[in-house]
Amino acid sequence: MSSEEPLQSTPSEENPEKKLSKKELAKLERQRKRQEAAAAASAAAGVSAVTLEAEDPLAANYGEIPLNDLQSKEISGKKWTEVKDLTNELKDQVVLIRGRAQAIRAVGKKMAFLVVRERGFTVQCVLTVAQDVVSPQMVKFATSLSRESIVDIEGVISVPTQPITGASQQVEIQVRKLYCVNKAIPALPINIEDAARSELEIEKALQAGEQLVRVNQDTRLNFRVLDMRTPANQAIFRIQCQVENIFRQFLLSEGFVGIHTPKLIAGSSEGGSAVFRFDYKGTPACLAQSPQLHKQMSICGDFGRVFEVGPVFRAEDSFTHRHLCEFTGLDVEMEIKEHYSEVMDIVDRLFVTMFDSLNEKCSKELEAINRQYPFEKLKYLRKTLRLTFEEGVQMLKEAGVEIDPLGDLNTESERKLGQLVLEKYGTEFYILHRYPLAVRPFYTMPCHDNPKYSNSFDVFIRGEEIISGAQRVHVPEFLTERAQSLGIDVKTISTYIDSFRYGAPPHGGFGVGLERVVMLFCALNNIRKTSLFPRDPQRITP
Amino acid sequence: MSSEEPLQSTPSEENPEKKLSKKELAKLERQRKRQEAAAAASAAAGVSAVTLEAEDPLAANYGEIPLNDLQSKEISGKKWTEVKDLTNELKDQVVLIRGRAQAIRAVGKKMAFLVVRERGFTVQCVLTVAQDVVSPQMVKFATSLSRESIVDIEGVISVPTQPITGASQQVEIQVRKLYCVNKAIPALPINIEDAARSELEIEKALQAGEQLVRVNQDTRLNFRVLDMRTPANQAIFRIQCQVENIFRQFLLSEGFVGIHTPKLIAGSSEGGSAVFRFDYKGTPACLAQSPQLHKQMSICGDFGRVFEVGPVFRAEDSFTHRHLCEFTGLDVEMEIKEHYSEVMDIVDRLFVTMFDSLNEKCSKELEAINRQYPFEKLKYLRKTLRLTFEEGVQMLKEAGVEIDPLGDLNTESERKLGQLVLEKYGTEFYILHRYPLAVRPFYTMPCHDNPKYSNSFDVFIRGEEIISGAQRVHVPEFLTERAQSLGIDVKTISTYIDSFRYGAPPHGGFGVGLERVVMLFCALNNIRKTSLFPRDPQRITP
Repeated sequence: MSSEEPLQSTPSEENPEKKLSKKELAKLERQRKRQEAAAAASAAAGVSAVTLEAEDPLAANYGEIPLNDLQSKEISGKKWTEVKDLTNELKDQVVLIRGRAQAIRAVGKKMAFLVVRERGFTVQCVLTVAQDVVSPQMVKFATSLSRESIVDIEGVISVPTQPITGASQQVEIQVRKLYCVNKAIPALPINIEDAARSELEIEKALQAGEQLVRVNQDTRLNFRVLDMRTPANQAIFRIQCQVENIFRQFLLSEGFVGIHTPKLIAGSSEGGSAVFRFDYKGTPACLAQSPQLHKQMSICGDFGRVFEVGPVFRAEDSFTHRHLCEFTGLDVEMEIKEHYSEVMDIVDRLFVTMFDSLNEKCSKELEAINRQYPFEKLKYLRKTLRLTFEEGVQMLKEAGVEIDPLGDLNTESERKLGQLVLEKYGTEFYILHRYPLAVRPFYTMPCHDNPKYSNSFDVFIRGEEIISGAQRVHVPEFLTERAQSLGIDVKTISTYIDSFRYGAPPHGGFGVGLERVVMLFCALNNIRKTSLFPRDPQRITP
Repeated sequence: MSSEEPLQSTPSEENPEKKLSKKELAKLERQRKRQEAAAAASAAAGVSAVTLEAEDPLAANYGEIPLNDLQSKEISGKKWTEVKDLTNELKDQVVLIRGRAQAIRAVGKKMAFLVVRERGFTVQCVLTVAQDVVSPQMVKFATSLSRESIVDIEGVISVPTQPITGASQQVEIQVRKLYCVNKAIPALPINIEDAARSELEIEKALQAGEQLVRVNQDTRLNFRVLDMRTPANQAIFRIQCQVENIFRQFLLSEGFVGIHTPKLIAGSSEGGSAVFRFDYKGTPACLAQSPQLHKQMSICGDFGRVFEVGPVFRAEDSFTHRHLCEFTGLDVEMEIKEHYSEVMDIVDRLFVTMFDSLNEKCSKELEAINRQYPFEKLKYLRKTLRLTFEEGVQMLKEAGVEIDPLGDLNTESERKLGQLVLEKYGTEFYILHRYPLAVRPFYTMPCHDNPKYSNSFDVFIRGEEIISGAQRVHVPEFLTERAQSLGIDVKTISTYIDSFRYGAPPHGGFGVGLERVVMLFCALNNIRKTSLFPRDPQRITP
């Protein structure tokens, strides 16, 4: 309990008149040591610019914080301000911030500018040599900082008359104290500035005869921790979090229960070769390709309506812009009373709610993405368009694209149909249902009036599939027959099939890839941009 | 689009006077076929009790619904009522419900009772032979239903004068129509009634000379889909969903971002032998033991405060009541300004909020669990107690339990300390911090004043550990040194260590097991009770 008490202690500034207390003396002593350590460290690093003079009377106002002071040494009660909260309402106030030295610029020997970034927001900090506040040595120290180092800055907020173009916040900090918390190596493998640059900017510069650095996708991913720091990436993953959140909140409000099904599966998941196999205490096992079987079993277990957010694993050798070996599945399964349109109704309302909410609540994030990767806002209807597969085939036919009416759409015909739908109905988000049975998994319920078709659907955004759903076969004998007819060894899925022997309600559901939703909503060109640490057949690091 | 239209069609009851329309004739024809199919199916199943007579003029009011009618044949626009919503406000109204035939009882040949269950709620349905409504054959059909079959029931709500003890709802349905949607096999491997029984009930019966069936844990798990249907299990997994939800909502409100880190990891995760290994396209790989390394990397990537909910995998051979090979991790990582108490502050407020919310919003679920597994409400303080490890050791010592002051607590001493804390401070939820460094992972930050201790903590509920947390080492050279000193091959975690070379803020975090929180909040005796499909060294099915 005692470690909590200093939180209530009186800040020393409140008694400016009194003599130096024991505590203050100790503080000065610490600052002196800090300064010495900083000087030693700088010397060791061979940074010639930093020839700190120990006799600087303002030495306590800057330097490197030794590690020991960062090991939870004290709870000072100091008030920290976030960079995003630095506005002109704070004019003339003293603030304390922690962030990264994004850019450092010396102006002669008596002045320096530091742009400090915290979670994507930036503020300009100014050091000006002034008696009793900033020494020339302190300016030197500032300009010797390596970019992306973590710094603590104390200073006074000022509001310049001119707009600030180099930072997000429209105030400056007149620096009084500057400490380095953690140094970045001087030569970073990629610069945030380069990683944050749009193609447009690179091309414009090229036209003006300047060659700017373009950071390619693989380099970004190799140094993902740096790449993540760009405003666009900060925004992408905040939007991803929001997508998941809306998904959950919408479903919870509709009586769904969030569940977690196992990823470690005996046998071979839903069959097929695209599974990662491993040994489970002597038993052959694999990683779940989807929560399909277990979410259906949860419906047999009386949960009525369930959803799951979790990783799904695909060992496929897909080298496309839209496939990953591991991604986050958003899965739904629900009892249906009469018709699989009940499932499509959920898809409809869920996604319209989601798109509305993203446009409304994530405007800053969408702007940040737009600056680096310009895109058009998604066009969608208040009530989602539903077309049958046959209608889709017909539309393609009329546009001169012949496809097998009982086959699947390939990427090209999906895109073409998306284009036709946009022209005719004015939407980039629609549902295509009654797919041919032959192209759907064994557990898909055939149509009541034509066994060549199925009670299934796919959902498209900007001409690309993001959701697959269907009514499922809930009769064990029929399910067995369907599995066998597709060459699946029913022994490996016997507990799944048995689940339907104890009374099973008609049901259906769908699955969505979280990364794909974000990619397509923001019209990004590669799914690796929406996975924090993507896994593809050639990448399992970092 | 056209498939949606029937939703707007006028229900036929609104024109009772007019002659039978084409649609109605078709409906009667369908009912006739349904009846025939049911008779045929019953005959095929050899159910001797069901000697359905085709000439029953009321044959259309009951029977088995043929599969074809369940393949999304029509959208009738019928209104369905949930069992939980059946209250005496609906007196004299006609309702339509779908649920399971939980219990079936014949009273002579002219009456039958059916208890129908939907998502844990039950209602008593009464069939009484009456001209033009219920035939003796219909009563026969009802009594021939196998338990747990899915049925559709239409009838009129009546309110009996006596309280109903055999069902949750205090109204009855006077049945007019009864269809079987899906049959359960007649001999279920476990009965829901047996699975829902408390130990107390079994013992009481035994004292009265009656031997009731006790379903053991393994049998439950073998037939988990049946076991899930008990009121206690319905409640447990709804509470689990709520725990996750509060976790997320609390952290989102505190500026955390939800992330997803990869489960497929090159090399050997955080080291140690307890990992599941597999081959990733020719590269040795393993399943993540926790999101530890990647959540820290996300902090280096400027997300400031992150959380993750996802599966974690442990290949340990632990056969205890509290270990699983796969469980759901609730992980948190955050920048800290000065002290690891900032992390403990989050733990404190998060869990107090969670417990408050569970007690408030899940009272029905907690009651349901209490009926089968009686437990005392968790005792916790408004401000969570924090003790240092040394204080804990001292308390144990004073109680006559000597433990190594630089070792870890074993299960026994954890329990003992929990007991002492409860006696002294009146809480079953507390934080123990400043653990010996030697018993913590390599990435744990040592204390500033004593390298034998660390800036770490564990959190306990009812004498069992549920959370581990700490400040982390954010200096790459020191991190390397710590890893090497613990015999970890730093080459396998080089991208992790490199993340700290680009400027890393001081940070800390913690991890919680979702299943453990639910188990200990409800004082359940086995973690397998709070995992939907548990995985342990001996179980990878269903």
